[in-house]
Amino acid sequence: MSDAKYVYAFGAGKADGKAEMKNLLGGKGANLAEMTNLGIPVPPGFTITTEVCNYYYQHDHSYPPALKAAVETALRSVEQIMGRKFGDNQNPLLFSVRSGARSSMPGMMDTVLNLGLNDQTVQGLIKQTQNERFAYDSYRRFVSMYGDVVLGLKPEGKHEQDPFEVILHAKKQERKAQFDTDLTAADLKDLVARFKEAILKRTGHAFPDSPEEQLWGAVGAVFRSWHNDRANEYRRMYRIPEEWGTAVNVQAMVFGNSGDNSGTGVAFTRDPATGENRFYGEFLINAQGEDVVAGTRTPEPIAKLNDLMPKAYSELEAIYKRLERHYRDMQDMEFTIEDGRLWMLQTRVGKRTGSAAIRIAVEMVDEGIIDKREAVKRVDPDQLNQLLRPIFDGADRTAAVKEGRLLAKGLNAGPGAASGRVVFSAPDAVDWAKRGERVILVRIETSPEDIAGMKAAEGILTAQGGMTSHAALVARQMGTVCVVGCSALQIDYNAGTMQVGGKTVKEGDWLSIDGSSGEVMQGQLKTIPSEVLQVLLLKTAKPESSPSYQRYDKLMTWADELRTIRVRTNADQPDQAAEAIAFGAEGIGLCRTEHMFFGGERIKAFRKMILSDTLDDRRRALERLRPIQRADFEGIFRAMQDRPVTVRLLDPPLHEFLPQKESDILELAREMEVSPEKIRARVASLHEFNPMLGHRGCRLGVSYPEIYTMQVQAIVEAACAVKKSGINVRAEIMIPLVGHAQEMQSMRELALRAAEGVINETQVQVDYMIGTMIELPRACLVADKIAEHAEFFSFGTNDLTQTTYGLSRDDGGRFLPDYLDRGIYKIDPFVSIDQEGMGQLMRMGLEKGRAQRKGLKVGICGEHGGEPASVRFCHRIGMDYVSCSPYRVPIARLAAAQAALGVE
Amino acid sequence: MSDAKYVYAFGAGKADGKAEMKNLLGGKGANLAEMTNLGIPVPPGFTITTEVCNYYYQHDHSYPPALKAAVETALRSVEQIMGRKFGDNQNPLLFSVRSGARSSMPGMMDTVLNLGLNDQTVQGLIKQTQNERFAYDSYRRFVSMYGDVVLGLKPEGKHEQDPFEVILHAKKQERKAQFDTDLTAADLKDLVARFKEAILKRTGHAFPDSPEEQLWGAVGAVFRSWHNDRANEYRRMYRIPEEWGTAVNVQAMVFGNSGDNSGTGVAFTRDPATGENRFYGEFLINAQGEDVVAGTRTPEPIAKLNDLMPKAYSELEAIYKRLERHYRDMQDMEFTIEDGRLWMLQTRVGKRTGSAAIRIAVEMVDEGIIDKREAVKRVDPDQLNQLLRPIFDGADRTAAVKEGRLLAKGLNAGPGAASGRVVFSAPDAVDWAKRGERVILVRIETSPEDIAGMKAAEGILTAQGGMTSHAALVARQMGTVCVVGCSALQIDYNAGTMQVGGKTVKEGDWLSIDGSSGEVMQGQLKTIPSEVLQVLLLKTAKPESSPSYQRYDKLMTWADELRTIRVRTNADQPDQAAEAIAFGAEGIGLCRTEHMFFGGERIKAFRKMILSDTLDDRRRALERLRPIQRADFEGIFRAMQDRPVTVRLLDPPLHEFLPQKESDILELAREMEVSPEKIRARVASLHEFNPMLGHRGCRLGVSYPEIYTMQVQAIVEAACAVKKSGINVRAEIMIPLVGHAQEMQSMRELALRAAEGVINETQVQVDYMIGTMIELPRACLVADKIAEHAEFFSFGTNDLTQTTYGLSRDDGGRFLPDYLDRGIYKIDPFVSIDQEGMGQLMRMGLEKGRAQRKGLKVGICGEHGGEPASVRFCHRIGMDYVSCSPYRVPIARLAAAQAALGVE
Repeated sequence: MSDAKYVYAFGAGKADGKAEMKNLLGGKGANLAEMTNLGIPVPPGFTITTEVCNYYYQHDHSYPPALKAAVETALRSVEQIMGRKFGDNQNPLLFSVRSGARSSMPGMMDTVLNLGLNDQTVQGLIKQTQNERFAYDSYRRFVSMYGDVVLGLKPEGKHEQDPFEVILHAKKQERKAQFDTDLTAADLKDLVARFKEAILKRTGHAFPDSPEEQLWGAVGAVFRSWHNDRANEYRRMYRIPEEWGTAVNVQAMVFGNSGDNSGTGVAFTRDPATGENRFYGEFLINAQGEDVVAGTRTPEPIAKLNDLMPKAYSELEAIYKRLERHYRDMQDMEFTIEDGRLWMLQTRVGKRTGSAAIRIAVEMVDEGIIDKREAVKRVDPDQLNQLLRPIFDGADRTAAVKEGRLLAKGLNAGPGAASGRVVFSAPDAVDWAKRGERVILVRIETSPEDIAGMKAAEGILTAQGGMTSHAALVARQMGTVCVVGCSALQIDYNAGTMQVGGKTVKEGDWLSIDGSSGEVMQGQLKTIPSEVLQVLLLKTAKPESSPSYQRYDKLMTWADELRTIRVRTNADQPDQAAEAIAFGAEGIGLCRTEHMFFGGERIKAFRKMILSDTLDDRRRALERLRPIQRADFEGIFRAMQDRPVTVRLLDPPLHEFLPQKESDILELAREMEVSPEKIRARVASLHEFNPMLGHRGCRLGVSYPEIYTMQVQAIVEAACAVKKSGINVRAEIMIPLVGHAQEMQSMRELALRAAEGVINETQVQVDYMIGTMIELPRACLVADKIAEHAEFFSFGTNDLTQTTYGLSRDDGGRFLPDYLDRGIYKIDPFVSIDQEGMGQLMRMGLEKGRAQRKGLKVGICGEHGGEPASVRFCHRIGMDYVSCSPYRVPIARLAAAQAALGVE
Repeated sequence: MSDAKYVYAFGAGKADGKAEMKNLLGGKGANLAEMTNLGIPVPPGFTITTEVCNYYYQHDHSYPPALKAAVETALRSVEQIMGRKFGDNQNPLLFSVRSGARSSMPGMMDTVLNLGLNDQTVQGLIKQTQNERFAYDSYRRFVSMYGDVVLGLKPEGKHEQDPFEVILHAKKQERKAQFDTDLTAADLKDLVARFKEAILKRTGHAFPDSPEEQLWGAVGAVFRSWHNDRANEYRRMYRIPEEWGTAVNVQAMVFGNSGDNSGTGVAFTRDPATGENRFYGEFLINAQGEDVVAGTRTPEPIAKLNDLMPKAYSELEAIYKRLERHYRDMQDMEFTIEDGRLWMLQTRVGKRTGSAAIRIAVEMVDEGIIDKREAVKRVDPDQLNQLLRPIFDGADRTAAVKEGRLLAKGLNAGPGAASGRVVFSAPDAVDWAKRGERVILVRIETSPEDIAGMKAAEGILTAQGGMTSHAALVARQMGTVCVVGCSALQIDYNAGTMQVGGKTVKEGDWLSIDGSSGEVMQGQLKTIPSEVLQVLLLKTAKPESSPSYQRYDKLMTWADELRTIRVRTNADQPDQAAEAIAFGAEGIGLCRTEHMFFGGERIKAFRKMILSDTLDDRRRALERLRPIQRADFEGIFRAMQDRPVTVRLLDPPLHEFLPQKESDILELAREMEVSPEKIRARVASLHEFNPMLGHRGCRLGVSYPEIYTMQVQAIVEAACAVKKSGINVRAEIMIPLVGHAQEMQSMRELALRAAEGVINETQVQVDYMIGTMIELPRACLVADKIAEHAEFFSFGTNDLTQTTYGLSRDDGGRFLPDYLDRGIYKIDPFVSIDQEGMGQLMRMGLEKGRAQRKGLKVGICGEHGGEPASVRFCHRIGMDYVSCSPYRVPIARLAAAQAALGVE
């Protein structure tokens, strides 16, 4: 590092750096250099690199020895350009010192403005500007900013106000001034003295008069702010590595607050909310940039600048067009006008909403600015969600908040907005829905028994459980609005009430939940379905009448052209399957058969099967289930037409199908005409300490071959029936939880026998495969041996994560948030594939499988199949397809295209 | 396989095979060939190879085409040597057809003797022997054996007796005969007819008169018997691969039952029960080999043969010496004397008890027959258990004798002491054992069908049969306590009682049997530690007074010289530690701290900690625990002296420490002076769906750093205190359940801070390391990253097995037995390391760890650490040590030495 260049200068049309050097100079520094090179007016300055930041942290808050000289040289160069001198009493040069990381972290780190002022140089500033009041205003702003940022004079405790504000307030009261602007130069000069006094008294350190000392103090403070709480939290949220570090930009001050011919503003080359191609921004006359951001004054729309300063405006107009053309993306710019002269302080790629991202990407292709490949890369797949979710009417929500009806906030598990009447049990949800009520199902948590109720509900709200809890999982697959883990709820099932936010909500009360924001609101908020959904699913709007749909469609068409990995869906019902096809699903990657056993007669027959004492009784009960299952599969095969459908045989442990509560046991006993003791005994005998690691998956198939036989028969019967009607059904029979080649071999033989039996009987030759779910570490380790007997692999990454980590999804909630907060886990492995750890097992499983069986079809059907980083990983390791819930299919398609374009 | 040789002939001093060809010819066939080549008298014959067996199973029970001709050729050759003809009416040649696998499976498979007899050839046999009664006796034996084995005429249902026995019994009653020998030739001839009639009637197949057809029928039956239930069970028990197959030996019959100048017997070159170097065996005059093994007659001791047939005896003596010299191991031989002429029918390495194995190995070294390396290989490590098994307390025995409770004395077939409740059938033994009862299986004699019951029993007692009876043989191999030939027993199966020594013993009564003395005693006798333990642990006996200890010590000394992997113990208490040192432990590989929190005041303080609402309360509760923990560790460090001690920090989930039962909750509430609601709420909040995958291990350390801090302080304080007294303590602090490098880093930092704090305070420089338990798949996958922060790894293979398989030890019981029975799992992965699957993760973890940190210390502390095959695997992959429970330390030492000698 001894030969490294630590300081990159820019100014007067020439810069050491350029836009491509973001890693070294940060986004702001790189773009200041780029603009300078483009001949755009940028106040001269220099950037201290991110490498110095890392050095600073690795060397106990000290700098590389060569830095001092480099900074001196750069300072002299700025002085020369500006014709002013840093620390000069006659014609002083002032600096701003700003952070600038590789990725924008707006407002997270610290800034110092007007640096270089002291009791002497302020006199020079007066001379320069002929404006004593302005000079002292700048001085007092500098002292308070420096006192806060560099010297650490912050409010003490929760309730103290900002100490500088307190002094300012006192001064204004003394002077009976209403606004800051009512204070005179003398008042401001006095404030400077009082500020310095407060600093000395409360920090024990005098405010440094030496501009040199001020500069190094500010640089250190900016580096240190890389690790303040806000920045750490922000990095965690956006997964920004700590090792990136921040650069420091030291730049000659220009003043937007030097009079009514000055001003400052922020502008976008296009509308960041809607994406509309129009110049968009705001400005303030006679103000510094901080004033715009702070929101203390309401800024003017940018168009008004044309009226006030037409020259500066037309210059700005030329620059914004040039910058967008140059960067080929929507820009977010900061500018300052000093005494009529325009200076650009920053440009960067602008953040935007999902709708805006899509609109900008698509329109830029139409305008010939970017190509389709670039457009596909520009949209974060998760942003597509915003196009698909039903939404609350914004005005109605604002009114509700004003009325104090915002009760609590939970985790936004199922996107969209839902209003309905509160019920506290699944059967109630079904009953209420049957009589035409819209309901919100509120539970402490949900279980598979609640499935019918969850389906009947408009929205699901739980007090416990995370983003991958049962409620969240089912809700996402169903496309149901869902808020989970809303710990503020205190639910009393017996009373049929919940306490929240100081209020009592009773069964039947109206509630609105926003699955996009996690907000829980009292009463009934208006919802409107998204435009895209109106076209795609409801067909209530025509494609040609919806520009929003057309853009979505264009983007997805490009994505499909580019991607090489297929996208399937996880669906258990024909209507889900149809929905998924509308979203672009090319098959079903996971059809769970156990959901088919709940509800009405099915659960009765299934329970009868479980309570059977003999094989014959069990077979009889299964025979009653077979036509029901067959009908289910027929519906799905018809919906999917010639697309492949992977059906997983029974997976969960049998105890999940029996009631646990005494009252339910008594009822079941009556229903089944057996003794409650018998049911209790069966429940007890099926109890498991760790059901996740228990008697489930193919272990059930080994113990009760008759269950799997019935299921395979039903699948193949359905396939034969549908094939007869001319549809080329493609059934894939999936054996869950295989860990041993012998399990696979034995279950394959069973399935083959059952399938061939049906085919011989019906004489219909259907296309079917037998494969397995790879969801145990051991399955990955011996995948070659398993592949001898399996025609396809589907990674069940939910369970594979649980076993690889030794971490139950249901129980992890107690410490997982803490693990994420403290950065022990960088990602929630249930949300995004743990590529470092579990990814090795997946690669191994895939490679061993394909080594044994050339061209083995491999996919993923865990929740990860719809998460962009995971989809990209699946592409990279060579999977054939991903499968996810219907509403995530477009996201997966886009992510898959990005993966094909090499996005990591 | 088309060029393969299927048939290996032997006879007249020349054989195609040899001893080394066991895999192809089976043990019996290979040794018959070897003996033939040595010029030892062996009836001529031929062996059909194990490859034919595999062919038979792979080709739907058919033979390779070339087999028929090869068998014909071999038959002709035997005819020539014997000067008799197969199927000849004048001078017929008869054959025995016997199984013979690579590894001896005594009595598990089928045998047919006297093959070749029919109504015509029996006339030739009469001519040959001039003994009509003998000829018909042979004939009726052949028909019943063939009917049973080949034609499958077995008892139907549980209660039916052997159908041939029923007919025999009826005939005897008709003839008012007491013994079989009271029947005349005519009677026996009639029996043949009745047997054939029964066969035809009950099986629908006529008994085949063609000797050729008889031969192929018998060969097929022997091959099929490789897969009978008994053989399958036996292979499962002894982990004999199914693929080995059995050979079939077809050998000219010689008759030990052709008169009083004939006989048959079994002999050992040394005593198989004690290992004493003396010729040992038994014989019966005028009998076939089956009579000795079946245990229906109790045979005479071998010495008596010298009196009756001195020539044959001295010939036998010469042969046994020659065979032991030749094979350099104790031999188990079968011989037949036909009309004064000695024939050897089998020799093989003799099965022996653990004590015998050790004695023979050690003495053979002393005698210069084998070297130490060979001796170490000769003892199955698990056999050491027999030396450590308790023996009856002498005083209690004396008292029992005085009270008249010594009921009888039998032959001491399986050394050791066993007390249990009497059962009279094998299925009962299994049932009773399943519900936790200790049982003594009492039988008139045992048969291969009883194998499961024999395994379930603490001890086996038979009324009939000698040291080479089925019961004795099996007991020796299993290491089960066994007394045979206790003719004083009068057992009544129907009544479920036995009369002995004038007393009646009923099913369920307590009985004690001494397999070393042969004594059978009423009631439950006290046991005391074995001789070896008296020397080793109790120091109540002197080494020089115990030959048994001296032999043990010699063998273990050799093992220690040879092994390269160290052996530690898992111990939580000073007394366990001391015990383990006596057993040769070189350190503690796992000291579980949670056990220290149970009992008395400790559990109170620990519960107080769990019930604390604030960090301060928790700290206060922990402070009360710290001196208690410190004292625990001091005790262990003192016991272990300068040996390394690995202490694992708290691992189990906290709910394990709270009561679950309502009454216990109420009591605790009273004790702690808190409301029961509070405890109930804490119990509920700590409840986990899958505790195995929940909030435990280092996750507790992350959530409650104060707990781990207290533990590390206590460990280091104890280490400092003990070091002050001059002991060079070596503490290894182990962080459990690490899956992420960041967990390790964070816990290491915590532990370092706590440890250095104590060291700074006490100013005692103790030697300590911080490492981790590798027990999650993810830990193996990222072992390189974890090793950055860990100074040692210890594989926790219990949890690693659970997570790799996705299989809970607590819940697997429901289907694991079935999995093992059906061969889906070849081994129970909780008993022996799953080398195929989990072994890959272990290798990976070890290699990645060592790649990151050269010389990283790696061990294993799961239950597998004391299982011989697992120990050998740990050696092979390069671990530094294994750790196991104290009583398994000698086993691990021996297994480690065998591993170093290349035993797989």
